[in-house]
Amino acid sequence: MAYYKRNGEYSYALGLSLVIELLKHQPAQISEVYLHSKLKEGLTKSELLTKLNQLKIAYKINDKIFNILSAKENCFVIGEFKKYTSQINVSHNHLVLVSPENAGNLGTIMRTALGFGFNDLIIIGNSVDYFDPKTIRASMGAVFALNINYFSDIDAYFTLTPHHHYYPFMLQTDNLLPFVTLKEPFSLMFGSESSGLDLSFLELGTPLRIPHLPLIDSLNLPNAVSIALYEAARKKQVVKAKKI
Amino acid sequence: MAYYKRNGEYSYALGLSLVIELLKHQPAQISEVYLHSKLKEGLTKSELLTKLNQLKIAYKINDKIFNILSAKENCFVIGEFKKYTSQINVSHNHLVLVSPENAGNLGTIMRTALGFGFNDLIIIGNSVDYFDPKTIRASMGAVFALNINYFSDIDAYFTLTPHHHYYPFMLQTDNLLPFVTLKEPFSLMFGSESSGLDLSFLELGTPLRIPHLPLIDSLNLPNAVSIALYEAARKKQVVKAKKI
Repeated sequence: MAYYKRNGEYSYALGLSLVIELLKHQPAQISEVYLHSKLKEGLTKSELLTKLNQLKIAYKINDKIFNILSAKENCFVIGEFKKYTSQINVSHNHLVLVSPENAGNLGTIMRTALGFGFNDLIIIGNSVDYFDPKTIRASMGAVFALNINYFSDIDAYFTLTPHHHYYPFMLQTDNLLPFVTLKEPFSLMFGSESSGLDLSFLELGTPLRIPHLPLIDSLNLPNAVSIALYEAARKKQVVKAKKI
Repeated sequence: MAYYKRNGEYSYALGLSLVIELLKHQPAQISEVYLHSKLKEGLTKSELLTKLNQLKIAYKINDKIFNILSAKENCFVIGEFKKYTSQINVSHNHLVLVSPENAGNLGTIMRTALGFGFNDLIIIGNSVDYFDPKTIRASMGAVFALNINYFSDIDAYFTLTPHHHYYPFMLQTDNLLPFVTLKEPFSLMFGSESSGLDLSFLELGTPLRIPHLPLIDSLNLPNAVSIALYEAARKKQVVKAKKI
């Protein structure tokens, strides 16, 4: 038990709501649950203990860890888990992020992806750590519900998904998102916060652009991804009427 | 010249690109421009000096300020400006944020609003400071291009815009954004990151919801606002074909 390390074997869900998500989606990966001695007695605590008991997961009361792992004062539960690999479903539509840089951005993107029915996230290349506790926190636990695959090289992803329609989002195209019909299964692809996708992606599938006034250079990454996922869900009518 | 203070008279654009936006949109508000002695000679510097000269704006070379105001190592220009009030156009469509809490979120929302043709931003109640250098940075300068009005109480805004159609975004409604025709001029209204709009907004105009799967509780605020602004622009066909 120490500071979080990217190349370490374990990571941490910091706070009750994240631990609940961890218990719901990845109970088999949990190695330890830590409770702070100041965790209030009450319904929430007894529900947590019941759940841990059902799943036969041990817990420890240990205040020291909270000082090491969490800067937040209102964190009274920590879930330690073994980093795991999940498997994307190659017949689903995918969200592909190439070299995302920011943990908070990656987390909010995960949350939005889960909300719009994109359960399969692919991360490519030199990127921020998707098991960083900051990413986990920003995802509000969505990280545990998604299938996430990492490839150091995009070619490995292309080899796995030859039947996919690739839609790289780029500023250098006149194909506008609102007017394009997406062919399934598709892969919506985004580059990094600082530099987007490189020009070679123009030749890979159908590049798309979210139209905006030239008063701004570009949209912020999570906002752009959210718009694309919303629009894809709208076109597919995932978001139909009162169903959801 | 000291640390930034919310209740102070001045604020700061930290970095060359923000200073360029400040010069473009609000030159009359600039009180001083500071250059770091390590600002590289070159095209950018000479363009900046030409522009300052044209606008008859003085500059100082002063490295100490950079240590006080900027934690970023790559900041070599600071624009100091007097905080100003701008006037919204009451016949335009508006974006209304009630009690936004986070400077980074507010900034990215400004950038997206400007990109989708929403030039009038209204901020209500107990909120983060829209002239905080962190907000300015996250806005990438959009803060200087927008008309921003602050009201401590929402009733003052309602009094000013009796002809507006109010669309509060809330989870407690079955009116779904993709299926609603927005009547102009409209006000898209959002609550804070932590608690959204209170239930009294259900009675004010037509509440709307962005449909998402129940796997997540809600979308993150800037992502939700971005989707709403995109969808409003799409419905209005602001984002039409190759025009923009």
